[in-house]
Amino acid sequence: MTDSPGIVVTGASGRMGQMLIRTIQDSSKARLVGAVEREGHAWIGQDIGAAMGGPETGVTVTDDPLEAFASAQAVIDFTSPAATVAFAGLAAQARAVHVIGTTGMTDEDLARIHVAARHATIIRAGNMSLGVNLLVQLTKQVAAALDEDYDIEIIEAHHNQKVDAPSGTALMLGEAAADGRGVDLGAVSDRGRDGITGKRERGHIGFTAIRGGDIVGEHDVLFAAAGERITLRHVASDRAVFARGALKAALWGLGRKPGEYDMLDVLGLK
Amino acid sequence: MTDSPGIVVTGASGRMGQMLIRTIQDSSKARLVGAVEREGHAWIGQDIGAAMGGPETGVTVTDDPLEAFASAQAVIDFTSPAATVAFAGLAAQARAVHVIGTTGMTDEDLARIHVAARHATIIRAGNMSLGVNLLVQLTKQVAAALDEDYDIEIIEAHHNQKVDAPSGTALMLGEAAADGRGVDLGAVSDRGRDGITGKRERGHIGFTAIRGGDIVGEHDVLFAAAGERITLRHVASDRAVFARGALKAALWGLGRKPGEYDMLDVLGLK
Amino acid sequence: MTDSPGIVVTGASGRMGQMLIRTIQDSSKARLVGAVEREGHAWIGQDIGAAMGGPETGVTVTDDPLEAFASAQAVIDFTSPAATVAFAGLAAQARAVHVIGTTGMTDEDLARIHVAARHATIIRAGNMSLGVNLLVQLTKQVAAALDEDYDIEIIEAHHNQKVDAPSGTALMLGEAAADGRGVDLGAVSDRGRDGITGKRERGHIGFTAIRGGDIVGEHDVLFAAAGERITLRHVASDRAVFARGALKAALWGLGRKPGEYDMLDVLGLK
Amino acid sequence: MTDSPGIVVTGASGRMGQMLIRTIQDSSKARLVGAVEREGHAWIGQDIGAAMGGPETGVTVTDDPLEAFASAQAVIDFTSPAATVAFAGLAAQARAVHVIGTTGMTDEDLARIHVAARHATIIRAGNMSLGVNLLVQLTKQVAAALDEDYDIEIIEAHHNQKVDAPSGTALMLGEAAADGRGVDLGAVSDRGRDGITGKRERGHIGFTAIRGGDIVGEHDVLFAAAGERITLRHVASDRAVFARGALKAALWGLGRKPGEYDMLDVLGLK
Repeated sequence: MTDSPGIVVTGASGRMGQMLIRTIQDSSKARLVGAVEREGHAWIGQDIGAAMGGPETGVTVTDDPLEAFASAQAVIDFTSPAATVAFAGLAAQARAVHVIGTTGMTDEDLARIHVAARHATIIRAGNMSLGVNLLVQLTKQVAAALDEDYDIEIIEAHHNQKVDAPSGTALMLGEAAADGRGVDLGAVSDRGRDGITGKRERGHIGFTAIRGGDIVGEHDVLFAAAGERITLRHVASDRAVFARGALKAALWGLGRKPGEYDMLDVLGLK
Repeated sequence: MTDSPGIVVTGASGRMGQMLIRTIQDSSKARLVGAVEREGHAWIGQDIGAAMGGPETGVTVTDDPLEAFASAQAVIDFTSPAATVAFAGLAAQARAVHVIGTTGMTDEDLARIHVAARHATIIRAGNMSLGVNLLVQLTKQVAAALDEDYDIEIIEAHHNQKVDAPSGTALMLGEAAADGRGVDLGAVSDRGRDGITGKRERGHIGFTAIRGGDIVGEHDVLFAAAGERITLRHVASDRAVFARGALKAALWGLGRKPGEYDMLDVLGLK
Repeated sequence: MTDSPGIVVTGASGRMGQMLIRTIQDSSKARLVGAVEREGHAWIGQDIGAAMGGPETGVTVTDDPLEAFASAQAVIDFTSPAATVAFAGLAAQARAVHVIGTTGMTDEDLARIHVAARHATIIRAGNMSLGVNLLVQLTKQVAAALDEDYDIEIIEAHHNQKVDAPSGTALMLGEAAADGRGVDLGAVSDRGRDGITGKRERGHIGFTAIRGGDIVGEHDVLFAAAGERITLRHVASDRAVFARGALKAALWGLGRKPGEYDMLDVLGLK
Repeated sequence: MTDSPGIVVTGASGRMGQMLIRTIQDSSKARLVGAVEREGHAWIGQDIGAAMGGPETGVTVTDDPLEAFASAQAVIDFTSPAATVAFAGLAAQARAVHVIGTTGMTDEDLARIHVAARHATIIRAGNMSLGVNLLVQLTKQVAAALDEDYDIEIIEAHHNQKVDAPSGTALMLGEAAADGRGVDLGAVSDRGRDGITGKRERGHIGFTAIRGGDIVGEHDVLFAAAGERITLRHVASDRAVFARGALKAALWGLGRKPGEYDMLDVLGLK
C-alpha cells in the first residue's frame, strides 16, 4: 500500500473532512498522507486518527498546506471559497491533483480557479455522487426528448439544518432541464409557489423544497403530462457517497493533463 | 328503484356536475330527479342525458331550483358561494338535505349557511373523499402522539390548471396537525420556502405545492425525525371519489335532524 | 377534416376499442372511417357512436374487416392474437398501416406478422405510451452506465383485475436492464421472492408486483447501491395515453415503406 | 451521571451491540456499566471503548453475565434465542429490567421468557422504533375503518444482505391489518405473486419484498380502492432508532412490576 497514491485532506476536522479521511483509510487504492487544518485549530500537532477518537494513523494534523501537498499526489478539499482559492495555487505549485467540493464560490473565485487550472489538474463539482451526476445527464436528455406537454418539477428534500432552498443540486438539475429544452432557467423558474398563483405556465420549471429530520438528500425530476408521468429520482442515504466520489475523482485525475474537469468527465458521462 | 331517494344536482353542466349525475345514475341506492343550471344556460329545457352526449334520462335541465328541490329528498351542490347560499335557503324550504362541496366561501357566506341549518340538514366539506377525511383524522392523531423531534411537512401535487397553493385539503391537513399539537397553524406555517431561509424552525409545519399534468390530487403528511420518517399519503386518481362521497353524504343525511354536519360525521370518524 | 387520414378500429366495443374511437374523434389529425367487431356481435349494423351511448357518428359497426380496411389509411388493433394475425394479412391487402397493440402473441403468431410485414407497414408494441418507451431506453442506458454494485429491482403496480405478474411492461424493462448489462434476463431474474431466500445475489434483477384498486399502471426501475439509489419511474393515470400513442403510430406510419416497426421508431428514440 | 441508571449490553461486539453502546454513551439519562460477550471472544478482558476503536470507557468486556447484570438496573439484549432465554433467567435473578430485541424465537423460547417474566420486568419487541410501532397501530385502525373495497398491500424494502422475505415488521403490519378486519392473516395472505395468478381476491392482503443496496428498512401499507389510495409509510434511515427505542424501553421499565411488556406499552399506544 506504500505505493498507492498519497492523498491530503483539507478541513480535516469537519464533518466532510472526517468522512473523507475514513473513506481513504478504508480504500485499498489510496493512502492518507496529510491532514490540513487552519492555523490555531485545536487539532494541529495531533495524530488525525486519535483526534477523531479512533486509533493512531501516523499522520499529524498540520497548518502548513504546501508542505503537506508536496508529499501528495492529490488534495481533496471541501472547505470554504477563500481557502479553496488559496489551496488551488499551492496544489498547482506542488503538482498535486486538486479535487474541489467546496460550494458557494463567486465568479471571481471561479476565475482564479480557472487561472490555477492552466498549470494544475482541477476537478470541481457541486455534487460528487455518481448517481446525481448521472441524473443530471438523464434530465437533460429527457427534457430534450419530451415537449412542453410535459410539465417539469424539481422536488428536493433535505435535513432541517439546511439554510438555503432550493438545493444546489436541484438548481443543477433545473439547469440541465432548461438546457435540454433550449431555454434559460432564469426566465422559466417557478420558485416558492404560494397563494393565488394562477394556472401553471406552460414551459415553466417548478422547484419545491421539503425540510425535515436528517434527510441526507433526495431529488425528484418530474415530467407530468395528461395521462402519464415520468420521474427521475435520486436518494442519497449516506454522505460517504460524496467522499467516495471525491476519491474516485482524485484517482482519475492522476497523470491527467492540466485543466478544469468535472464529475461528468470522471464518470465518462460526457 | 322508483322508491329510492330522489337527488337534484346543481351546476349540472359543469365537470363536477356531470360526474355527480353519472354517479347517481350508476347507483342503485338513489335516482336523479332534477338537474339545475343558471338562467339562460344553453342546456335549459334539454334532457340532461342527451345534453351530456349520452342516452336520454327523462330529466329536463331547469333554471327553477325550488321546483326541482321540491320533488327531491336531497340536493348535491358543487357550485359557487353565491349560488350555494341561495340554494341553502331553498333547500331548507323544500325540506331537502343539502350537500355542499362548494369551496371559497367567506365568513359571511358561512354565517348564512349556519342560519339555514337551523331548519335544514346541511352537510358541507372541503373534500368529500373517504380517504382524505380519514387522513385528516390520522394526521391529528399522529401529530398528538409524536413530539417536535418530528418535523411535519405537508406536500401536495395537483394538475397544472389549479390556481392556488397550497390546496384547501393541504391546509385542512395542516390544521389537523396543528390541532394535534395544540398550536396555532398561522403561527407555525412555513410556506413558499425559497432562498436563504435559515435552518428549519423546530415545531414548524411546512407546505409545498407541486403542479403538473392532470394530477387529480395527492397529499403527503410527512413526520421526519433523526433516523426515521412516517408518511401518511392520499392519492385521488378519479374525481368520481368526490361524487361518490357526496352521494354517500346525501343518503346519510336523510331523516337526520337539522344542523350542520361534515364528512367526519358521515363517515363515523368523530 | 375530410382529407385527414381515415382510421379503422378493430375490437370496437372493447374498453380499449372505445378509448381509441374517442381519441380519434377528439383529434384534428385523423378521422374515424370504420369500426370492426366479430361476426354476431350485438353492435353489428349499429352506429358506433350511438352504440357507445353518445351521439351518432355516421360510422356503422361491421363484421367485414376487409371492406372497412379498404377505405382506410390505417388500422388500429388491440384484439386477440388470432384476430390480429388475420387482420395483418387483410391490412396488407388493403395497403393500410397496421398498428398492433395486441399482447400475448406466440412465436408462431409473430412469424406470421413478420411475413405480412414484407408487404405492409406494421407497427407493434407491448406498450404504446411515449413515457414507457422512453423509460425502456433510459433503463438500458443506466444499466449500462452502472456496475453491479447497483442492485436492479423492477417494481410494478396494477389494478386488482390483472391476472398475470409481473406485467408485460415490467418484463420489457427487465429485458432492457439485462440488455444494458449484457446478461440474459432469464439467468438473473428474481421473481416471487418469499420465505428464506438467502442474501440477494449480485447482478440479479428482481421483480415485484403490487395489485390493488384501479391502478392503471406504475413501473419503477430501482438501482440501489450502498449510500445511494436512482429510480426511474413511470405512472400511467389514464388509458388514453395508450390510445394517443397508437394514433401517433398510425400517423407516423403513413407512406412509410413496408416493414416491422416499434414505438422506439415512432418516437425517434432509436 | 454516576446516579443515572446503569445498563449492560449483551452481544457487545455485534453491529447492534456497538450501536447500543454508542447510544448509551451519548445519552445523559443512562450510563454503560457492563458489556457481555460469549466465552472465548477476542474482546473479553479488553476495554469496550478501545475494542470498538475509540477512547477507553472503563468498562471491561466480560463473559460472566450474572456478575455484569448484578451491578446494573437494566440489560439490553439483541442476541440469539438461546442466549436470550439464558439471560432472561439471570436478569430475573439480578432484578434487572430485560429489554429483548432478539428475533426468531420459537414458541418454546417464548414460553421460557414467559416463565421468567413472573419475577422479572421484560420488554420484548420485533421492532423497537417508535415510528414502526405507531404504524402498527395506525394500520389496525385504518383496516378496521375501511371495508374490503380497499385492497391492502404491504410493501417492504431492505438491504441486499437480508435472507428472509417478507420482513418480520411486514408480517407484524400484516397481522395488524388482519386484526383490524377481524380475519386470520394466514387465510388471506398473497405472497410471492408471480406468473398467472388470476385476479386479486377481494379481502386478501398482499406482501412484496424489494431488496437492494444498504436500505435500512422501508415499509408501506397501501389501501387501494377505485379512485383513491391511502398509504401509511415508515422509513428507517439509521439503525440508531432501534437502539434509542431499546434504551427508552429500559428506562421505562425501571421500577415497573414484573411482567411481559412490548413497545406499545412503552410508547403509551395501547
